[in-house]
Amino acid sequence: MGVTRALAEYLAASRLEDIPRAVRHEATRSLLNWLGCAVGGSQHEAVESALAALAPFAGGSQATLVGRGTRVDAVTAALINGISGHVLDFDDAQPRNTNINPSCSVAPAALALGEHLHASGAEVLHAFVLGLEVECRIANTVWAQGSTLWFANSMAGVFGAAAAAGTLLRLSPQDMTWALGIAATQAAGLRVVFGTMSKSFIVGRAAQNGMTAALLAARGFTSSESSLEAPNGFAERFGPDADPAPIVRDLGQEYEVSHNVYKPFACGIVLHAAIDACIRVRNEHALAAPEIETVELHVNPATIAVTGNPAPTTGLEGKFSVVHCGAVALIDGAAGEAQFSDARVLSPDVLDLRARIRPQVVETLARHQALARVTLKDGRVLESRVEHALGSLGNPLRDLDIEIKLQGLAAGILPTAVADRLIKTCWKIEDVDDVSLITKLTHP
Amino acid sequence: MGVTRALAEYLAASRLEDIPRAVRHEATRSLLNWLGCAVGGSQHEAVESALAALAPFAGGSQATLVGRGTRVDAVTAALINGISGHVLDFDDAQPRNTNINPSCSVAPAALALGEHLHASGAEVLHAFVLGLEVECRIANTVWAQGSTLWFANSMAGVFGAAAAAGTLLRLSPQDMTWALGIAATQAAGLRVVFGTMSKSFIVGRAAQNGMTAALLAARGFTSSESSLEAPNGFAERFGPDADPAPIVRDLGQEYEVSHNVYKPFACGIVLHAAIDACIRVRNEHALAAPEIETVELHVNPATIAVTGNPAPTTGLEGKFSVVHCGAVALIDGAAGEAQFSDARVLSPDVLDLRARIRPQVVETLARHQALARVTLKDGRVLESRVEHALGSLGNPLRDLDIEIKLQGLAAGILPTAVADRLIKTCWKIEDVDDVSLITKLTHP
Repeated sequence: MGVTRALAEYLAASRLEDIPRAVRHEATRSLLNWLGCAVGGSQHEAVESALAALAPFAGGSQATLVGRGTRVDAVTAALINGISGHVLDFDDAQPRNTNINPSCSVAPAALALGEHLHASGAEVLHAFVLGLEVECRIANTVWAQGSTLWFANSMAGVFGAAAAAGTLLRLSPQDMTWALGIAATQAAGLRVVFGTMSKSFIVGRAAQNGMTAALLAARGFTSSESSLEAPNGFAERFGPDADPAPIVRDLGQEYEVSHNVYKPFACGIVLHAAIDACIRVRNEHALAAPEIETVELHVNPATIAVTGNPAPTTGLEGKFSVVHCGAVALIDGAAGEAQFSDARVLSPDVLDLRARIRPQVVETLARHQALARVTLKDGRVLESRVEHALGSLGNPLRDLDIEIKLQGLAAGILPTAVADRLIKTCWKIEDVDDVSLITKLTHP
Repeated sequence: MGVTRALAEYLAASRLEDIPRAVRHEATRSLLNWLGCAVGGSQHEAVESALAALAPFAGGSQATLVGRGTRVDAVTAALINGISGHVLDFDDAQPRNTNINPSCSVAPAALALGEHLHASGAEVLHAFVLGLEVECRIANTVWAQGSTLWFANSMAGVFGAAAAAGTLLRLSPQDMTWALGIAATQAAGLRVVFGTMSKSFIVGRAAQNGMTAALLAARGFTSSESSLEAPNGFAERFGPDADPAPIVRDLGQEYEVSHNVYKPFACGIVLHAAIDACIRVRNEHALAAPEIETVELHVNPATIAVTGNPAPTTGLEGKFSVVHCGAVALIDGAAGEAQFSDARVLSPDVLDLRARIRPQVVETLARHQALARVTLKDGRVLESRVEHALGSLGNPLRDLDIEIKLQGLAAGILPTAVADRLIKTCWKIEDVDDVSLITKLTHP
């Protein structure tokens, strides 16, 4: 049996009860983290712009636009919510493997279609776990070291969205095979659009395209029987040196979602150890910025390669500047969205301190390690060394941290009491009869 | 100035009056040919299946579903009409260059958005010419010999659809640049789905994706400034050995649509010379099949490589079988959709004759050349040699041939009088105040 068919057979036969409790809990953490990101991103100008452009073409009231209090057709909802969920670059990641953000295309497809179908929370969670599984296995196999050529989130995400939607639609193995084929021929995403609204757009589009693939297959729309492994198929075209067989190796033995981590800080994951070190030294010594003379920041080589910008002028550039991140971490004790506004990047206190931060590459430091050494004006030297940055696999966010992150992202959008109810209901997703009980709690 | 920006500047500055009359006439021929294909394909099970799946998500009554008498939102109409127009594989082609089918993604986008905007026929024709121009220039540059790796129709078509829609929306150079970027990151299409409904689907999807790109850009949705030529951009990823500069060389000097040809027969273009030769020998000698003992068919090597199937069992397989095509051409004097039904492929008279047809590769024959030599039961030998197959650049379909083709495709779907009015109105598209006057004539 070919890889695509074997994957489809596995999906069609899967039952939520087969999935270990710990895996389901990790998936629930991923979903809650994604909901926080989507609420937090829901007022972004990329979302406003996309809605202004596309709402005139949308269909009926089937699924909730997260954080916005309106409903549109489920296919449009998957796109818009996909933009909201990824536009802050704050979503879950897999640093163990490809650095893909697994939930970004799967969650919006599973939630929007689930709401439309009045699926139970358990059904949506099941679809979500399987979608992440398909997406990560394809990404891990086709781009074992991560993709430097293609945008893996959307390229693999379209398969994840198709698998999730196909699970909700209870597709037969034949139809699921076709859904994967219809997804394959829509796989897209160029890295040239990074740094623009189009990055989150193509993530939302993958959600929408995957959902569409499953909807078509459910109506007998035909496609390739072997889109992943055949000549001219997905693996040959996008990862020509890869052997597609591992996509289906040991299915059901281990689950990809178990390797998800969640960002505590609203910027590139390579900066997290340095930020963590700065917050720790600040908090341990109750430092105030005016006391600081200079700061040495010891970081892994990859950190500087990506984030060496010494003079960012916008919030987005601030997300790729180690000196800005160090400055806000020391002054504010935080690196959330508020620390990456255009205004904060140009604040006098931040400009003053960042000029006195010296990043230094230390070859022996791993990406989850960093050291902050602060010299005070009174001559004292204080330091904090981070072995496992907050949010890394060795120091994962606790459930409470994810709740706090959601509350922070929801601030100013959802009333605190509503965000609390959202959190509580999401933890009990397996007991929810209709998943719209969750999505409705994202209404402002 | 970069390639993408230069292309956007050209598009934003173009006026229909700048385009020579002969070019506009060829574009009108292309549009009429596409309309015939779309009417003819509009009842196909791929269209039925896609509508069953997606109509529940569609928005308001903005644009006509060709051949079906209903209207949906313009974005959905572009997709469905894109499927209808390509599902018969009967559309225009560019054998001079990449063998791309230029109109298949551009026409549905231009017509659906034009109808929604109440654009004039002249505006739609202008958008159509520019869309074809962008698409073919990109395809010719990135895949000079045609693409054996990617499906060029959808990959380049998404840019053509974006350019056409952007022209109708009168995008500024900046917004047009972004529209091309949003198109680039959606570029998709794997050849692994050939032979399934997904082939026409991704063509329709490219129409829809390109239109969406322009709609988003019109609302300030940002993208790359240099999506065609930059590192990690379209050319580097999909044609890594290509120099992108020719995409904008001598813009406005010559028009790609001038190189369009139209298929007289409803099958792969490599078979057309052989079919033409068989029809000619049949008609010149008023042959009846029972008189025939054997047939030698001399063809170009490419013909046999692609269409050597000696025993097709379905209509679709018949389209890739030189012996089936030879048999129906000799018996029916035609090779339209009726000759590629499942039933016709298995008719006793066709089975009997095809067993007596011997294809023979002749290295010196070009793709537009063939020879049919018929030995009759009475011993006579008759032959017909084709130098320029009907529909090739050296022997293009006349305007009347395109009208006859449309009438044939519309038979059983549109009343003859309506098809006549459609033809007459389309020839005068530049005088039509609202292009919906044309699309409404595709209502059954």
